[in-house]
Amino acid sequence: MAKDGWTRPAREALRPDRGFRLADLDPSSTPGWKGDSEDAEARLAEVGLELAELQERLFAQSRTGGSRSVLLVLQGMDTSGKGGIVRHVIGYVEPQGVTHRAFGVPTEQERAHHYLWRIGQALPEPGRIGVFDRSHYEDVLVVRVHDLVPPTVWGARYEEINDFEKDVVDSGTTVVKVALVISPDEQRARLRERLDREDKRWKYKPGDLDERVLWPRYTEAYQAVFDRTNTDRAPWFVIPADRKWYARLAVAELLTQALRDLDPRWPPVTFDVEAEKDRLDAQVL
Amino acid sequence: MAKDGWTRPAREALRPDRGFRLADLDPSSTPGWKGDSEDAEARLAEVGLELAELQERLFAQSRTGGSRSVLLVLQGMDTSGKGGIVRHVIGYVEPQGVTHRAFGVPTEQERAHHYLWRIGQALPEPGRIGVFDRSHYEDVLVVRVHDLVPPTVWGARYEEINDFEKDVVDSGTTVVKVALVISPDEQRARLRERLDREDKRWKYKPGDLDERVLWPRYTEAYQAVFDRTNTDRAPWFVIPADRKWYARLAVAELLTQALRDLDPRWPPVTFDVEAEKDRLDAQVL
Repeated sequence: MAKDGWTRPAREALRPDRGFRLADLDPSSTPGWKGDSEDAEARLAEVGLELAELQERLFAQSRTGGSRSVLLVLQGMDTSGKGGIVRHVIGYVEPQGVTHRAFGVPTEQERAHHYLWRIGQALPEPGRIGVFDRSHYEDVLVVRVHDLVPPTVWGARYEEINDFEKDVVDSGTTVVKVALVISPDEQRARLRERLDREDKRWKYKPGDLDERVLWPRYTEAYQAVFDRTNTDRAPWFVIPADRKWYARLAVAELLTQALRDLDPRWPPVTFDVEAEKDRLDAQVL
Repeated sequence: MAKDGWTRPAREALRPDRGFRLADLDPSSTPGWKGDSEDAEARLAEVGLELAELQERLFAQSRTGGSRSVLLVLQGMDTSGKGGIVRHVIGYVEPQGVTHRAFGVPTEQERAHHYLWRIGQALPEPGRIGVFDRSHYEDVLVVRVHDLVPPTVWGARYEEINDFEKDVVDSGTTVVKVALVISPDEQRARLRERLDREDKRWKYKPGDLDERVLWPRYTEAYQAVFDRTNTDRAPWFVIPADRKWYARLAVAELLTQALRDLDPRWPPVTFDVEAEKDRLDAQVL
């Protein structure tokens, strides 16, 4: 058994408080965790199994009328580790229980709709864990940084997003929003690795470096997101992510806690178990 | 390293030939495999990693215009192990690379359309492995066994399905169709386990026993499926599945071979790698 290296629950240690300043966060820190990377891997293996079982219970409930689901929103700069979270945390959950969706530059069809339309289309069904790799927050991040719409337009979106998320939560979906925060130096190292490795190079595009120089503006845009959309209903968790092992464990803990809170139980039996055993034994095929 | 216990490739050993009789198949046999269950588990771990990497290459290709995908169609009686295949084989593939869809009794919306409509909606996007837990074959299986439509209607569906699958294959999706075959005795044991275990009981419904007595009619309906839809383009593989470890390994081999045939490569680099390294090093943030 892994020893539990948390000194504070992840959901407390990672929730930005009122005076939170993203610029002051140390991306190599491990808030609330006193163990090392090996401890973290052992703990991840443990919490991953719990996550898988809780999801299966939630799924079982959905087969008998349960309406609950969980949505993990992943945001972060290029190379911040969103894909690794999907692989190493969500990978514990059986494929049947996961709905994964990556949001890129909107397609022509998507652009013909309100920016929240494609988000609404991709919400998880009851019993599932939905994962958004990027999300509607790009509409106040990349859109804001690049002035893709006027400030009055993106400026109105924070409240729209809060209203939208309220509806999502009210309809039975627990929303867990995670921002992975890396340092510019760590990003340089990871981009360098993408350039060095044949099996990673396809993830690189020259435009990544043009985005990179906008780092201060992204920091500002993320700060506004945390200031204006960190609701109790759909809270943000800001995760230092220079250490991949910490970020993965932290997300696993947050997601598992969200499922624990739903306390999903195996559905009640609606038939006479002993009578069914007798029927089964009596059948001759 | 696991020793490779195959005496014949899975795709040869499991492809029904012209005179194939389902009623003659031994569901506890392990065609083409001379190893035991431990050998099979070791081999599965090996082939699972290969499957994951091949899928990632296919995904990388899809980001640069590749149109190929793979569809695994899973059919089989209740408790034949479809869910276990998803968990223990597809579980090797990163969640981003998988589109899973279970087909149950059609919804009202689905019934308002042609029976192939919902299938077409669920086909995998380029780069993905799609998994159908049940499929359009239910429209010539449960529908035929229960006389849900007249024989002239279901009778016309075999050719419709062949035509439909031709279109799917022509548009770039490799189709691998798998039927998991268990014995009535094995099914009794597995249903019994569902009744015995609190965490399995939700999967049981009394109607399962009413289906079970129709075993001979299902055997007949499956035979017709193999006789009429086992095309070279979209072949069937019939897998004895009383031994779960064999069925899982066999599906992993078939799926991996389908991906090997596509021979997905990391996409060619479209930029000057050394120049990008220099740009990256020169950036001061």
